[in-house]
Amino acid sequence: MPEVVFQPIGRRIEARPGDTLLQAAQDAGVALSAVCGGVGVCGDCRVRVLHGQVSPLNAVEEERLSETDRAAGLRLACQAEIGGDAPIVVDVPPDSLSAAQRSQVEGEEIPLAVAPAAQTHDLIAVPPSVDDLRGDWERVQTPPPDEWRVSGPVLADLPGILRGHGWRARMVTLGRDVVRFLPPQSTPFGFAVDVGTTGLAAYLVDLLTGQTVGIAGATNPQIAYGEDVMARLTLCVRDPQGLDKLQKAIVGGLNDLLYEVCAQAGASPHHVVDVVAVGNTAMHHLLLGLPVEQLGSAPYVPAVSSALLTPARALGLDVAAGAMLYTPPNLAGFIGGDHMAMLLATGTAELPGVTLSLDIGTNTEVTLNANGTLWSCSTASGPAFEGAHIRDGMRAADGAIERLAWKDGELVWLTINHARPVGLCGSGILDAVAALRTAGIITETGQMLSGHPKVRGRGHTMWYEIVPPQQSGHGRAVVISRSDVNEVQLAKGAIRAGIKLLVEQAGLDESAIERVIVAGAFGNYIDLAGAVAIGMFPPLPLERFRQVGNAAGMGAKRLLINAHERERAAALVRRLHYIELTNHPAFTDRFSQAVMLTPVPWDE
Amino acid sequence: MPEVVFQPIGRRIEARPGDTLLQAAQDAGVALSAVCGGVGVCGDCRVRVLHGQVSPLNAVEEERLSETDRAAGLRLACQAEIGGDAPIVVDVPPDSLSAAQRSQVEGEEIPLAVAPAAQTHDLIAVPPSVDDLRGDWERVQTPPPDEWRVSGPVLADLPGILRGHGWRARMVTLGRDVVRFLPPQSTPFGFAVDVGTTGLAAYLVDLLTGQTVGIAGATNPQIAYGEDVMARLTLCVRDPQGLDKLQKAIVGGLNDLLYEVCAQAGASPHHVVDVVAVGNTAMHHLLLGLPVEQLGSAPYVPAVSSALLTPARALGLDVAAGAMLYTPPNLAGFIGGDHMAMLLATGTAELPGVTLSLDIGTNTEVTLNANGTLWSCSTASGPAFEGAHIRDGMRAADGAIERLAWKDGELVWLTINHARPVGLCGSGILDAVAALRTAGIITETGQMLSGHPKVRGRGHTMWYEIVPPQQSGHGRAVVISRSDVNEVQLAKGAIRAGIKLLVEQAGLDESAIERVIVAGAFGNYIDLAGAVAIGMFPPLPLERFRQVGNAAGMGAKRLLINAHERERAAALVRRLHYIELTNHPAFTDRFSQAVMLTPVPWDE
Repeated sequence: MPEVVFQPIGRRIEARPGDTLLQAAQDAGVALSAVCGGVGVCGDCRVRVLHGQVSPLNAVEEERLSETDRAAGLRLACQAEIGGDAPIVVDVPPDSLSAAQRSQVEGEEIPLAVAPAAQTHDLIAVPPSVDDLRGDWERVQTPPPDEWRVSGPVLADLPGILRGHGWRARMVTLGRDVVRFLPPQSTPFGFAVDVGTTGLAAYLVDLLTGQTVGIAGATNPQIAYGEDVMARLTLCVRDPQGLDKLQKAIVGGLNDLLYEVCAQAGASPHHVVDVVAVGNTAMHHLLLGLPVEQLGSAPYVPAVSSALLTPARALGLDVAAGAMLYTPPNLAGFIGGDHMAMLLATGTAELPGVTLSLDIGTNTEVTLNANGTLWSCSTASGPAFEGAHIRDGMRAADGAIERLAWKDGELVWLTINHARPVGLCGSGILDAVAALRTAGIITETGQMLSGHPKVRGRGHTMWYEIVPPQQSGHGRAVVISRSDVNEVQLAKGAIRAGIKLLVEQAGLDESAIERVIVAGAFGNYIDLAGAVAIGMFPPLPLERFRQVGNAAGMGAKRLLINAHERERAAALVRRLHYIELTNHPAFTDRFSQAVMLTPVPWDE
Repeated sequence: MPEVVFQPIGRRIEARPGDTLLQAAQDAGVALSAVCGGVGVCGDCRVRVLHGQVSPLNAVEEERLSETDRAAGLRLACQAEIGGDAPIVVDVPPDSLSAAQRSQVEGEEIPLAVAPAAQTHDLIAVPPSVDDLRGDWERVQTPPPDEWRVSGPVLADLPGILRGHGWRARMVTLGRDVVRFLPPQSTPFGFAVDVGTTGLAAYLVDLLTGQTVGIAGATNPQIAYGEDVMARLTLCVRDPQGLDKLQKAIVGGLNDLLYEVCAQAGASPHHVVDVVAVGNTAMHHLLLGLPVEQLGSAPYVPAVSSALLTPARALGLDVAAGAMLYTPPNLAGFIGGDHMAMLLATGTAELPGVTLSLDIGTNTEVTLNANGTLWSCSTASGPAFEGAHIRDGMRAADGAIERLAWKDGELVWLTINHARPVGLCGSGILDAVAALRTAGIITETGQMLSGHPKVRGRGHTMWYEIVPPQQSGHGRAVVISRSDVNEVQLAKGAIRAGIKLLVEQAGLDESAIERVIVAGAFGNYIDLAGAVAIGMFPPLPLERFRQVGNAAGMGAKRLLINAHERERAAALVRRLHYIELTNHPAFTDRFSQAVMLTPVPWDE
């Protein structure tokens, strides 16, 4: 039976000739998006066949795939049938994966040379004899052992490997330090994680090829101690054991992901010789066990801004004994290593002209590259887009409405995994506000007009019924309330005010922005037209926007794959000019304009 | 009330004028030896008054103290009375301490400049403001933080210290790595341990002054898994969890000692910024968690010979987060870092002429410095001198006979702490053989002559009754048997054969040895004349011998106090020529001669 390999995730399956690639993907547990159920209507399941024999392009594909798609070699997985017994290699683009997976971990990747910080050497030693009683380490001939530093726990593997493999071994080093001895020919792996306040994304990377061989996402277990950053910082101040609890929680979550990605690749976690973690400054401190009191009160300074190397085992990570955890630099308390990683992955700092890059979350980090000068700020956009503080808000899980639009005068919805609707996730919330505003059901200031048949209640308790009780998954209506609209106004207003102030700081006008790079799970799913319509983003032509997925995670992988990326990060943090919005004299004015539900909130 | 300080142990007490120094020592918990109970008869409690006012030399002291003693400023603590209110500083020589303490930890010290590997820096930082949001680490002004490497767990202390102490702190570094941040003016400490197969000796050192401020001894908890090294190595081969158990046992024992010495000095274990451990190669491997299979079978090679730096926390030691454990180099499987430390502490390698240095234990390491060329061997002297395999053998605890001599035709004994005799410790066993040999009760070949009124039994079951049942502490006789005598012959024969072969290797005759340095607890207590009489040591004038106590422990302290000692250790191991006795062609011949109970076993 032919073997089908799905890249970059690395899943393999033995498939039957005549099956479609979609069936093979489903058997392999690859979550290909197939909204139409595989009948060739939605066009979501686009894949690229890199190698092997499949059926030729059929009429359904010719209709669904654009010229550009076809030129790029894309096929519909539901239509392409496996032909013959030869192995097939299939590339799955990030946006062909279904929401649950895509929202956490995938992102656009820019190619990168493989030159990891963790370097691999092949050792040759000479066996001992009664005339040669040197230690095992000293009997290594090449490379000369006295050029390297080795510690007790790392050395523990060497005697067994040398004796079991003809006095040969593989050695992994970081700088002058030996990180791990491996049997000859073994693959050293790297583990990259994006530690979000809400979600974790993890990647296992083959450090010889740079390929991603495992990928997994999970909820940050710290959620149990508080949904937002401030709740967790407060816990640390109030409870002397708080920091320790939060650190243990996140390390436990990362170890779970480590085992998961290693199982996908059939690798031992102890072959993981390098670790990169990116996160906002609070997540960084909580992972490293750094105190957060000074981070939670003015003037909000971190314990450290520089990149750090910390022994990963000392933190409790079950990786190789000598593996070090690299954490990239942060800029002030509100611009963390995750944003640095996002800027690295998107190449924001190197792009010509004027580029705006945003990472949308509870805090939204914004960086403007204005002809080579970099300005950054962090805006407290709040958790509305993660579904919090929203009456029927929810995470991006089954049954969440992720898209809403008018069709023949009716508001129609699309839910994750086509489950019956039970609530609204971030992109659905944004769509709802945009749709009601477009239809004139809510005003520029966020008031809800009574008189519409689906508007109920009065004053501040008014709501719009999106899904009637009989159509929902739980028998209750799914609604958006006036106060939900106000939450969205505050969130998008903070983001837009931040953008505006950066542009002003650079002496520019918003229209000068040549490209907008939108990263993050929420940013990846929003309807850009709606976001512009309600004034969250400047009114620029939509082709200037690019949604890049989990760029922070992609940046974390880059920091594993190529050591030069760590130098880029250090150089980048020195180039960024941080604008603190909380005490900026113009912030209140710009913010009060930006909360308006209109694409053009200022006179320009 | 005048304060009395006992050096080098560092104990302090407020004493009453008119009290003797012995009373003050007892109040302070300093275990001064005072066999006679303080009446001026035994002359054991010699001390040197370095500073302060005491009563003048009295008639008892003039009788008990030799000219040499008096010239060296020695006094009897039981006679010298505290005069006035001024502070008094008293130096306690190692052999004035009572057995229980002296046997484990004290040793002769050669002065050393204080220049530790762990260096101390005073930090000055600038406070943050809304215009200066750098991290706490980056706001350090002097020394410039980018010259140092710091990891997460080490950094955790900095924010609190800076805020609590006017933006100042003390930083301890090792090489380029930050080991610990401390409040300003704090003392960094070092922890040195001698890990013996049987006993542990631990020292807390003030790294600013080089003074020893805490000292403690304990039994190696690994004893529970086997009395000798081979039993423990066998456990590791047989039981996959064996190495882990043995490592946890020794780390637990070291942590107990750490807390004990820190309590003596009122110090926090987390202020311990540097650790040195010396031990034989097996103890070294078991502490570091290195595999021992290759150490326990021919050709007996260690996993590593070089000095190592290992993160101390990774091993489970409760010291500062960044503290590193330094282990000195070893030479082959049988010459460990403890012998290196002993050679450093005694200056053996630098002495002119011909010097023999021995560390007597279950294995006895011997080094000969023959006019600058160094030869070393290890002899399997066995556990007889630790009381094992001896019918009434016991450790050096209360009631152990530690000295035996003829007096008016009767064999009289001295026990530890004057308890009623219950057995024989190492020095008592040696004395018993020497006394019976001197009296002609045993022959040169170790046969016991029947006919003597105290000799009982017959053939190989014969024994000599040292203590009759009615005088012992347990109501049974304390005896030495013929097979005990044979055990001593094997032990001392191995040592003497090793000495002989080293001397031959250097092309010398034993009479050329100008000095013999005898280290270790047992070596410190033996009667040298007896040891020469039974042929354990070459027949040299007794003034050529020097008993130096726990020189390995003193060497461990030196490796803490002065970084140059680590370079000396590296240079030393390269100078040593190791002679493997087990396959030496002449060993059997020399050994068979050396087991004879005669001072001159070869024709010379």
